[in-house]
Amino acid sequence: MSSKSYRVGIVGATGAVGQELIALLQAHALPLAELRPLASARSVGRHIIFGQKKIAVQEATPAAFADLDFAFFGAGTAVTKKLAPEAVSRGCLVIDKSSAYRMDPQVPLVVPEINAEALRSHHGIIASPNCSTAIALMGLYPLHQAFGLKRVVFSTYQSVSGTGADAVAELEAQVQAYTAQQPLPRTVYPYQIFQNLIPHIDSFGADGYTGEESKMRAESRKILGLPDLKVSATCVRVPVVRAHSVAINAEFTRPVSVAAARRAITAFAGAQLIDEPANHAYPTPLAFSRQEQCGVGRIRLDTALDNGLALWVSGDNLWKGAALNAIQTVEKMIALGLPLRA
Amino acid sequence: MSSKSYRVGIVGATGAVGQELIALLQAHALPLAELRPLASARSVGRHIIFGQKKIAVQEATPAAFADLDFAFFGAGTAVTKKLAPEAVSRGCLVIDKSSAYRMDPQVPLVVPEINAEALRSHHGIIASPNCSTAIALMGLYPLHQAFGLKRVVFSTYQSVSGTGADAVAELEAQVQAYTAQQPLPRTVYPYQIFQNLIPHIDSFGADGYTGEESKMRAESRKILGLPDLKVSATCVRVPVVRAHSVAINAEFTRPVSVAAARRAITAFAGAQLIDEPANHAYPTPLAFSRQEQCGVGRIRLDTALDNGLALWVSGDNLWKGAALNAIQTVEKMIALGLPLRA
Repeated sequence: MSSKSYRVGIVGATGAVGQELIALLQAHALPLAELRPLASARSVGRHIIFGQKKIAVQEATPAAFADLDFAFFGAGTAVTKKLAPEAVSRGCLVIDKSSAYRMDPQVPLVVPEINAEALRSHHGIIASPNCSTAIALMGLYPLHQAFGLKRVVFSTYQSVSGTGADAVAELEAQVQAYTAQQPLPRTVYPYQIFQNLIPHIDSFGADGYTGEESKMRAESRKILGLPDLKVSATCVRVPVVRAHSVAINAEFTRPVSVAAARRAITAFAGAQLIDEPANHAYPTPLAFSRQEQCGVGRIRLDTALDNGLALWVSGDNLWKGAALNAIQTVEKMIALGLPLRA
Repeated sequence: MSSKSYRVGIVGATGAVGQELIALLQAHALPLAELRPLASARSVGRHIIFGQKKIAVQEATPAAFADLDFAFFGAGTAVTKKLAPEAVSRGCLVIDKSSAYRMDPQVPLVVPEINAEALRSHHGIIASPNCSTAIALMGLYPLHQAFGLKRVVFSTYQSVSGTGADAVAELEAQVQAYTAQQPLPRTVYPYQIFQNLIPHIDSFGADGYTGEESKMRAESRKILGLPDLKVSATCVRVPVVRAHSVAINAEFTRPVSVAAARRAITAFAGAQLIDEPANHAYPTPLAFSRQEQCGVGRIRLDTALDNGLALWVSGDNLWKGAALNAIQTVEKMIALGLPLRA
């Protein structure tokens, strides 16, 4: 095998993140010797389409990783905890989207535009962050670089595709039932999501924060390398199909200005500045669906926090929040000359 | 005329707030000698239904206020600024929902559960707050009483009925067009609102805050009697028909606890505590549409602010955010024995 062409697995190839990975891999033209779609036994018999090729889905058994260089994991935490060590023990590097290993001190949690240096110290598994965290940091990290982050409040507006394909189907079924004047079906969420809001994502902890909210705190700290950063998040599901948005209020250690903040966002690869209020120019989830960059706008001096800035970020939760960040992680390893193996 | 029965006008009787006022007036059984619906000349010829009665809409001319005790104003600021002084000069007390007079130092800005004492010092006009402000304060004021408010961050999730009946119709038309696979019509909002978010309510100011965001700051300060309160708001339109929600992060001067916060909410007339995460009990806009109390939940220690609390409030923007607050203002004046006249 050439050193510049890789045998690559995708665990969860038939799921929402897996499908986005396959589509993005074509656009990103990673040098692939083989693409091996892996999934649970019940998906065996299905195929994926990659370019001109139709590729049969294989069962994600430990042996399936034997001759792979690396694998994107887009599965649940239970499957991931079972299979990732098997992959690593067979020399297959794991790029994991699940939360299974994110807070493991042995595992780098990476957003390539922010902490690519952490890629040098992996032990076979590299984790990708929670979707809301990745998107929020596309607005917050350049400001942290410019001004030094001290504390941050996140309020999220998260699309149903963050829950999964079944939730997208549920919102669609509720829209259709509404216009047909039929009772709205509901199995995924505890309440109707069509024309409603659900301030509850992931399970509740003893401190009253949800898992999603706690992840935003812990993962922001780890990615930014600020273990004592003060973070509070409120995570809310909204009736939007795709792309998450975050209202951010942040306090900094150094003096801030809107002009310098806009320059920092403009200079940052992961973000696109959309901030001309007079022209109604600000990010929306519809405009930032299927966009690689996250949109950042509504930048203004925060009138509650000392030395603070308020801003608004919209970004694609299935791309920068998941599949794209994983692919960018591999691209960054190639650029850094790091070996793509466990 | 008996001292306990009133001649009452409703300016903007055919509008969204006017219709809610008429419905609520029946439920609240204010002692009315006459209900006089007033509107622009083009609504003359229409009727409103009040109980068993069909009442013709009259044109809102200065003379129309001549023999009224008080009038609810649910009109735009231009009409209000023209007609309110005419009403007052004829002895008719004005209870105004518009923003025309809210920040006028001569005009009390009242949420009856919070600052009813201000009703004693009016000069013929009493203002009702912005919908988001009124709803947010139903959660925040009891906590201010308990702990002493120091600074607050608001992130809103506002329904389209806050814009008006035309926006409700636009969302409905977009839902219908979507299921019919037709292009989505759009005239009210600058972007599609169906399955989208618009972080822009009211016009933008030079400081980058929208009018809605600035109102939340200025009106919170006036109602709470805290002229230097640090307030930052991000106001976002969401594809919900009715009821606004607000994520609140507040810092206090005295030590806080979740248990004491819950007790304060429970003891407050304007709020209903819905805060049992283990049972998926938290407020949603659907559950708090057409409810007189606002729902307060998700109360937890804020992990970004010192001595802080995070919470979530949902409330009906057309009721507590508009018509109900106006009716409660009149009821409070009756309870305080204040004359209901200019």
